[in-house]
Amino acid sequence: MNSNFGEKIVLSIFGESHGAAIGGVLTGLPKGIKIDFDEMEIQRLRRAPGRDKTATPRKETDEFEILSGVLDGKTTGAPLALIIRNGDTISKNYDNLRDCPRPSHSDYAAAVKFGGMNDVRGGGHFSGRLTAPITALGTICRTALLEKGITVGGHILKIGAVNDSEFDKVNISAKQLSVLNKAAFPVIDSKAEEKMRAVIEAARQNCDSVGGMVEIAVTGLPAGLGNPMFKGIENVIASALYGIPAVKAVSFGAGFDFADMLGSEANDALYYDKNGNIKTKTNNCGGILGGITNGMPLIIRVALKPTPSISKPQQTVNLKTKENVTLTVEGRHDPCIVPRALPALEAMLCVALADILAGEGKF
Amino acid sequence: MNSNFGEKIVLSIFGESHGAAIGGVLTGLPKGIKIDFDEMEIQRLRRAPGRDKTATPRKETDEFEILSGVLDGKTTGAPLALIIRNGDTISKNYDNLRDCPRPSHSDYAAAVKFGGMNDVRGGGHFSGRLTAPITALGTICRTALLEKGITVGGHILKIGAVNDSEFDKVNISAKQLSVLNKAAFPVIDSKAEEKMRAVIEAARQNCDSVGGMVEIAVTGLPAGLGNPMFKGIENVIASALYGIPAVKAVSFGAGFDFADMLGSEANDALYYDKNGNIKTKTNNCGGILGGITNGMPLIIRVALKPTPSISKPQQTVNLKTKENVTLTVEGRHDPCIVPRALPALEAMLCVALADILAGEGKF
Amino acid sequence: MNSNFGEKIVLSIFGESHGAAIGGVLTGLPKGIKIDFDEMEIQRLRRAPGRDKTATPRKETDEFEILSGVLDGKTTGAPLALIIRNGDTISKNYDNLRDCPRPSHSDYAAAVKFGGMNDVRGGGHFSGRLTAPITALGTICRTALLEKGITVGGHILKIGAVNDSEFDKVNISAKQLSVLNKAAFPVIDSKAEEKMRAVIEAARQNCDSVGGMVEIAVTGLPAGLGNPMFKGIENVIASALYGIPAVKAVSFGAGFDFADMLGSEANDALYYDKNGNIKTKTNNCGGILGGITNGMPLIIRVALKPTPSISKPQQTVNLKTKENVTLTVEGRHDPCIVPRALPALEAMLCVALADILAGEGKF
Amino acid sequence: MNSNFGEKIVLSIFGESHGAAIGGVLTGLPKGIKIDFDEMEIQRLRRAPGRDKTATPRKETDEFEILSGVLDGKTTGAPLALIIRNGDTISKNYDNLRDCPRPSHSDYAAAVKFGGMNDVRGGGHFSGRLTAPITALGTICRTALLEKGITVGGHILKIGAVNDSEFDKVNISAKQLSVLNKAAFPVIDSKAEEKMRAVIEAARQNCDSVGGMVEIAVTGLPAGLGNPMFKGIENVIASALYGIPAVKAVSFGAGFDFADMLGSEANDALYYDKNGNIKTKTNNCGGILGGITNGMPLIIRVALKPTPSISKPQQTVNLKTKENVTLTVEGRHDPCIVPRALPALEAMLCVALADILAGEGKF
Repeated sequence: MNSNFGEKIVLSIFGESHGAAIGGVLTGLPKGIKIDFDEMEIQRLRRAPGRDKTATPRKETDEFEILSGVLDGKTTGAPLALIIRNGDTISKNYDNLRDCPRPSHSDYAAAVKFGGMNDVRGGGHFSGRLTAPITALGTICRTALLEKGITVGGHILKIGAVNDSEFDKVNISAKQLSVLNKAAFPVIDSKAEEKMRAVIEAARQNCDSVGGMVEIAVTGLPAGLGNPMFKGIENVIASALYGIPAVKAVSFGAGFDFADMLGSEANDALYYDKNGNIKTKTNNCGGILGGITNGMPLIIRVALKPTPSISKPQQTVNLKTKENVTLTVEGRHDPCIVPRALPALEAMLCVALADILAGEGKF
Repeated sequence: MNSNFGEKIVLSIFGESHGAAIGGVLTGLPKGIKIDFDEMEIQRLRRAPGRDKTATPRKETDEFEILSGVLDGKTTGAPLALIIRNGDTISKNYDNLRDCPRPSHSDYAAAVKFGGMNDVRGGGHFSGRLTAPITALGTICRTALLEKGITVGGHILKIGAVNDSEFDKVNISAKQLSVLNKAAFPVIDSKAEEKMRAVIEAARQNCDSVGGMVEIAVTGLPAGLGNPMFKGIENVIASALYGIPAVKAVSFGAGFDFADMLGSEANDALYYDKNGNIKTKTNNCGGILGGITNGMPLIIRVALKPTPSISKPQQTVNLKTKENVTLTVEGRHDPCIVPRALPALEAMLCVALADILAGEGKF
Repeated sequence: MNSNFGEKIVLSIFGESHGAAIGGVLTGLPKGIKIDFDEMEIQRLRRAPGRDKTATPRKETDEFEILSGVLDGKTTGAPLALIIRNGDTISKNYDNLRDCPRPSHSDYAAAVKFGGMNDVRGGGHFSGRLTAPITALGTICRTALLEKGITVGGHILKIGAVNDSEFDKVNISAKQLSVLNKAAFPVIDSKAEEKMRAVIEAARQNCDSVGGMVEIAVTGLPAGLGNPMFKGIENVIASALYGIPAVKAVSFGAGFDFADMLGSEANDALYYDKNGNIKTKTNNCGGILGGITNGMPLIIRVALKPTPSISKPQQTVNLKTKENVTLTVEGRHDPCIVPRALPALEAMLCVALADILAGEGKF
Repeated sequence: MNSNFGEKIVLSIFGESHGAAIGGVLTGLPKGIKIDFDEMEIQRLRRAPGRDKTATPRKETDEFEILSGVLDGKTTGAPLALIIRNGDTISKNYDNLRDCPRPSHSDYAAAVKFGGMNDVRGGGHFSGRLTAPITALGTICRTALLEKGITVGGHILKIGAVNDSEFDKVNISAKQLSVLNKAAFPVIDSKAEEKMRAVIEAARQNCDSVGGMVEIAVTGLPAGLGNPMFKGIENVIASALYGIPAVKAVSFGAGFDFADMLGSEANDALYYDKNGNIKTKTNNCGGILGGITNGMPLIIRVALKPTPSISKPQQTVNLKTKENVTLTVEGRHDPCIVPRALPALEAMLCVALADILAGEGKF
């Protein structure tokens, strides 16, 4: 197993939910990037559980320690390692899961792959908790991107049947994104939040969970970044975002809506604006043509499946007795992972963008 | 620019649409894989243009020559190189495109990246023609997968507003897939074909184009293949499929539909079937849990945007005169790329699966 | 900067000599490898400073903590992270080195590359202390190799003008190697040790240092491992061993002696031994032909330059005042790094062999 | 098997000696590099066999065809593919080698690895002929390096017992290198050539072969290039040069001589020259400190073993009959590969340097 991402900026994640510590190493960073500890705290809290009823009441120790690669608050250029000690783990909740895999959880696939060696407690290395070091290290990239005028931000587009307004793909501003990317429950249409929270609360009260969709945008990327074929913007970003647990769909620009569009509707007409800059009148391509940025905002949509750990009785198998059984999952789980997954997705996107830029000598 | 894919099985694609030749090198193949020239011809024809009115009337020379890595009809284990000579190119059609990028085509992004050096004729290295060596080399992987009991096949799920029936995610058979993966216009519901063809023909007659969606399945994959985080099945496959031009969305299992599902609806209950094998009652996860296969069929959906090269007048810029202009694209273009893209997507999926298997010592 | 090694087994090293901690992450390990803590202690002590007069009297805290990837004393298959807290650092010894690079030390090259950001204290990330996590993690690979019948061991071949006997390239035994690879000062000819120690002591008393050469062998490797061209045994091993500070030459088999040999002298005649196994009568090729193992012992020689940190006055530059100056290096440095470098070289060789085997599905 | 080199500039070599063609793909090149066809012809002839008695009288068709990535004599930035058709192959000479591996040739190792599938004719993919595309593609990098003021050149340092003068490690000039790197038999001391040729001719007349050593230098590299640990200058260059057949030793600067040096002798004192540039008084480190360039010339030594294909009767095994046999190798082989290997080593060094520079955004 290898939990590394990137070619030039390489992120290496390690740890198990109930082991000694989780953490990561980020290499390839240039020297002199400021570590913005305030921003790291903001993003840590966005991802952390236990803040409100949309998330698990589990308290996790998310405080990180930077072990290397930073001197006087700035990166030195040497590998940056960061660890987060584990705590508040109740391993007994996982005793029956070693034999009875939770439906739609990684338990079964992991049991086949790692057999008796898999550390099933808390999901082991498969745990969503591993997004904590991703968020911390990705935030370092986020700060560096911001210094280059590149802003990443997203909102919750859909929870169950409730939709937020979509991004205005052409006119998204860095300012709008920088408000969203600090919010605990970021939406464009403030009325959507209440309705979404109601859907999540209903799921929670029903011992159930619910899925959702997020929309993320990036402003300030220069045109000409990326490659055709396999090292394109979409390839690299999709590969990064599928690293966040529960992600089952990633699209760019109009995404699946393209299937029902004519070329004359879909094509983004080019024009010179009054400042002599080339722009497009629409942005269905989501800022990417032939795998390469065109200078318009990047538009990415990601769908996440409902948390599989629900307290409702479910059908599964007992791997030891080889019988069909009914399982009731105990423990403190998230009724909806979407609000906590969004900062991790944004952080991972920052790592991917840093890697793309670094690969072209621009980071 | 680097057009390489893979870690253990490495595919390296080269060539420009109007250069001397296009081709590719496939390394990491085990020795002794049979080259199935009949299958390569079937897949070549599926991808080739000029067969019917859904595609460009352009005739392309797709005949390939294997230069290395094959002896007596079998792979030797050494790098396998394959080239396809170019022909029937009408470069004058591209004269005005050097200055006036086609809306939603890679022209503009490529012009920024490669400046005056980009070989714009026929799209250069960005051309959809590069899917010819991908299809040829991917078919070699397809044959090897088939010998291991792994079958890849897909169908056209949607063209404009016309939908084909969806795969039965639980009961897809290798037999069904092996019929679809030889068809020129594969659909499950035979009535869908006629309606889809009508949509394409209407677009063609309107000097327009139309997008679509395909659904691809894989049967016979063992459980336990893949990894959590960044080297998971979804990461690798998405990264591969975004290498095919026009792809703007890739999802697994229920994909974007997860956003509106409860955990109790989405979770795939596990059970022992009468042969003692572990299966799931539904397959919303598309055969992948925590980045690892669970033994159920893989289900992938891919949306493709309409071909940007349409003959309707469009707004664009003239990069030389720095003016806004109206462009009418000449040349012989596809009103719908979906039927020709499907075999390339399947081929690329075969390369990705071969790489995943090889990385675990199973290819 | 990226301190990662390997394709399938990836070693990622982090830390600075005077930072919070040093450590590493080892990914791609199979599940179920036993962690041999006794062997780790043996190798830790071989590499550790402060044991006798051949090494610096500096005491380093080398005790490691495994953070992840191990459960019940065995690897789980998840990334294995290990850290070593720093201690006993006297940073003031390095104050004048920020401006006045030590001749033949990385100081100057690092100053150019990392400018004011380089953590010069103790050599920062360039420090020989980084061989501590390499040795610890490499020892985990060493144990796994041993379980497959593969033994790595070496001896000090030369210190100054004093030579040890060479390995009998054909008849090296695992038994011989397993004695050498536990010794603090491994030599074949016991008389060589005393003479070598005298050379080192003379250098120490003269405020000087001395270089040397080691010879390392590997028994038990199967024939057929490796590749021609760029992924051959020699390419991978050389690339790994040059990662240990002070290494300036790496050769295989007869190495530089080949320059003065005829083909009829150099060629290793093949024969069937009485058990029907194919062997060679000589082993000038050092067990590698065309980048691939031939089943004979691997023979590697490595030369290390003298420690650059000597207390004799030396000519250098002051980067701040831009003057030529005389520098006297203070601090507690090694008069000869060779005995402490050997276990690190062996450990790194184990990582490289594990990666080669894993890449062929044999680890 | 994978014959790829590099991270940013990726060289992929394919082909077998007696197949349809050999060639390679070079990706990651920037746009606008001039293809210097005259220089390519010079280097082609230096590597080509059949020119004089030091080499095999075999005539090889070395004429290459560039298939992609070049427009109007300059690189476009797209992958550059190049092929060389095979010809003048006498495959019958290899009939008995399929069963009876030549001592110290890759035959035996390849037979174990690739079994019956190995294309043994002419050495297959293991053939020294594969250095033809390496030389051609490396020369494209050489031209690009030259435009940046970086010059690569080498000389034959030793053939048998005959030595050429060594490079003056401090005062090597680009001018000196640019004469050497065009010569068929480059030496510093013109008297050495005649003596070396006599050694080679004696070997040829005795149906034998002889080994040798080359010394290669690079001027014009900026200080600060490279990394500590595993991505250092030495790691990357050694890994590249071991890709050339027959290489068995690679060293930097004083190399193996360091073993017998004191720190006070080995250390290269730093000083400001009269132009205010930092230089070293000696250059034992060969221009590399801590894996990073220091601005002094790079000094590399490479030893090559004698060609294993000699016409003298030799002991080997018959893999079919499982008997010990005597083999007399027929065919037209090189009595000394050193003069022909030098341009290939230089070319491969150019690829490695291009990759290092590209990885830092400087190519």
